[in-house]
Amino acid sequence: MTTLKAPIDPESNSRVKAVFDDIRATRQTDFINNLWRQLAFDPPLLEATWAEVKRVMAQPSTLDPLTKELIYITASIINGCSYCVHSHTATAKAKGMTDAQHAELMAIVGLAAKTNQIATALQVPLDPVFDKG
Amino acid sequence: MTTLKAPIDPESNSRVKAVFDDIRATRQTDFINNLWRQLAFDPPLLEATWAEVKRVMAQPSTLDPLTKELIYITASIINGCSYCVHSHTATAKAKGMTDAQHAELMAIVGLAAKTNQIATALQVPLDPVFDKG
Amino acid sequence: MTTLKAPIDPESNSRVKAVFDDIRATRQTDFINNLWRQLAFDPPLLEATWAEVKRVMAQPSTLDPLTKELIYITASIINGCSYCVHSHTATAKAKGMTDAQHAELMAIVGLAAKTNQIATALQVPLDPVFDKG
Amino acid sequence: MTTLKAPIDPESNSRVKAVFDDIRATRQTDFINNLWRQLAFDPPLLEATWAEVKRVMAQPSTLDPLTKELIYITASIINGCSYCVHSHTATAKAKGMTDAQHAELMAIVGLAAKTNQIATALQVPLDPVFDKG
Amino acid sequence: MTTLKAPIDPESNSRVKAVFDDIRATRQTDFINNLWRQLAFDPPLLEATWAEVKRVMAQPSTLDPLTKELIYITASIINGCSYCVHSHTATAKAKGMTDAQHAELMAIVGLAAKTNQIATALQVPLDPVFDKG
Amino acid sequence: MTTLKAPIDPESNSRVKAVFDDIRATRQTDFINNLWRQLAFDPPLLEATWAEVKRVMAQPSTLDPLTKELIYITASIINGCSYCVHSHTATAKAKGMTDAQHAELMAIVGLAAKTNQIATALQVPLDPVFDKG
Repeated sequence: MTTLKAPIDPESNSRVKAVFDDIRATRQTDFINNLWRQLAFDPPLLEATWAEVKRVMAQPSTLDPLTKELIYITASIINGCSYCVHSHTATAKAKGMTDAQHAELMAIVGLAAKTNQIATALQVPLDPVFDKG
Repeated sequence: MTTLKAPIDPESNSRVKAVFDDIRATRQTDFINNLWRQLAFDPPLLEATWAEVKRVMAQPSTLDPLTKELIYITASIINGCSYCVHSHTATAKAKGMTDAQHAELMAIVGLAAKTNQIATALQVPLDPVFDKG
Repeated sequence: MTTLKAPIDPESNSRVKAVFDDIRATRQTDFINNLWRQLAFDPPLLEATWAEVKRVMAQPSTLDPLTKELIYITASIINGCSYCVHSHTATAKAKGMTDAQHAELMAIVGLAAKTNQIATALQVPLDPVFDKG
Repeated sequence: MTTLKAPIDPESNSRVKAVFDDIRATRQTDFINNLWRQLAFDPPLLEATWAEVKRVMAQPSTLDPLTKELIYITASIINGCSYCVHSHTATAKAKGMTDAQHAELMAIVGLAAKTNQIATALQVPLDPVFDKG
Repeated sequence: MTTLKAPIDPESNSRVKAVFDDIRATRQTDFINNLWRQLAFDPPLLEATWAEVKRVMAQPSTLDPLTKELIYITASIINGCSYCVHSHTATAKAKGMTDAQHAELMAIVGLAAKTNQIATALQVPLDPVFDKG
Repeated sequence: MTTLKAPIDPESNSRVKAVFDDIRATRQTDFINNLWRQLAFDPPLLEATWAEVKRVMAQPSTLDPLTKELIYITASIINGCSYCVHSHTATAKAKGMTDAQHAELMAIVGLAAKTNQIATALQVPLDPVFDKG
């Protein structure tokens, strides 16, 4: 169930084809997942979104690739994005996440949810030592 | 500003003192931050919360300590817990988070927020390959 | 999948029938969408909810009808209500939202998500000029 | 810090005065808290909001008054509304919430946060027995 | 659609079997719902989660069982956990929630959502009387 | 209170100075608000964020400037970003938002919050006519 009809032949648009070609080359697979197929309804939005994903997630950086996926899954869970939870869990497994690490991620996300909401409920005042302003 | 008055002399309660002693020993510091001081209003809740934090965050596991803090900060940002963002950012820095890694964390959380909400807006259908059920 | 069985013959209840009649007259269509069919399980809740929707969304006001729908879609995305994203996207299209405007809405919601979470992560202090208190 | 300057003499407006008088009579106190003072910037919004609060929260119903406040606090915590957490915690205490009940509320909200986010992360499929559709 | 394949024969693991046996004994039913079947992928996480659910929700306490379920449903709605909304609505009905109470819960959650977001939008300053710090 | 110390003399960095110069030229004001001052701790993140804000919010497009700000405020309220609610409310007023429009925005956001959470609570099934997939 979707709010938007994805284009039937997206690569007939040359800007879409260029992005899809780059996704295939970067990820070394022919598979183009649905997020990109739907974003093809607006080539500028597709280009900007892929450029940011590539720059932030697919290039060597100060955090290793699996750590980056664990952060992404965490964000997706809490933002309540079902599609994103699925796709980034699959990516994390492809990047080496073990069952034990998956279980540990659940434990941390659950613990954070719990202590975060208790701290919010109590409106815990900030310790001056934590303020960097 | 808080919804609850923290006990003035929390360690006069022996159950609270035992938890505070364990926090000091585990973290090798005399500093007890405000979350624990406020939770002292209910010793069983304090004990259960600290036991879980210690088990999940402070013991050797399949994820390294800094990765665990980055996941915790991510959860705290999105859950909107100001206190938690401050305290776990401080902890992550103590565990070695560099300014470049902090900036990269911002980039990933921001990217996830953006693509999560676009995926939610478009109600992107799940690719069968992502379904493990 | 629903948590509540909608009444099979809702209009046998005169209060429900009166609301459904007013929905049909206001929207000039025979179609009653599922939200109203489910709310029929409690006529006072149905009446109060429709009265507010009619007053806020269906009457001439200082914002034009399409702008109001764009605000509603935005809220629905972030509140994580799948049903609402679908129904208000359909309404916005009926009120003239073009594909380009839909794409632009995605770009703004995505940008806001990103900058909102970065501002929360950094706990940016309020500029005095923004304080109207 | 607020986004809107509350009117300096709100009761010079007769519609505002009527609402404030009703708040004082319903709650049997002269105290008008800041939410109402700020809403006075738009009398129709003030009237509609107070009417709903009075109908839902201040009239005899199938749930007892303290239970209703506990539900309200829960919602306020998770919606991330600091003002609301404070004001409804104060109201709940005025309606008899004990420290032990406050602690228990924290435990339930924390547990729900944790299991909710784990269920979302695992995308647990719905058991058919829970579907009432 | 799920991100994780639940074990096919979970009770072949003795730690999982012990938890499932305790769930059956505590709830006096043979039915083990999907959340527990999926958590069986990691026995320590299953044990810790069930221990907390049992302690917080299934034991006599200062709040009555139905009130606890109403708080849990409220949290689940706002956390956007579809599975949890379904399972806890079913539990609340089993514990005696009437249709009128269900409708009233909707009214309170809806009212809180509305006033919470208006208070957040106006950034209503805290009345000193609500501050217990 | 902030999690990060903003650079004391940000424009001594030439990349930061170039962005700040462009902000001043685009907005025709000397005022650089705190979000940008804090992002100066990482010039690439500052550049990428400003480039996206400028492209999405400051250039002529299919939505008028005030409508875009109203969407941004809506997102900021629900994402619970206090800084963003303040800064975008100020921007919207600068772009012509009247008090009546501000009040109407409150009414729509409040109504959406309420109906969104009720629809989530009831898990309203999608009407087939709303599915564009």
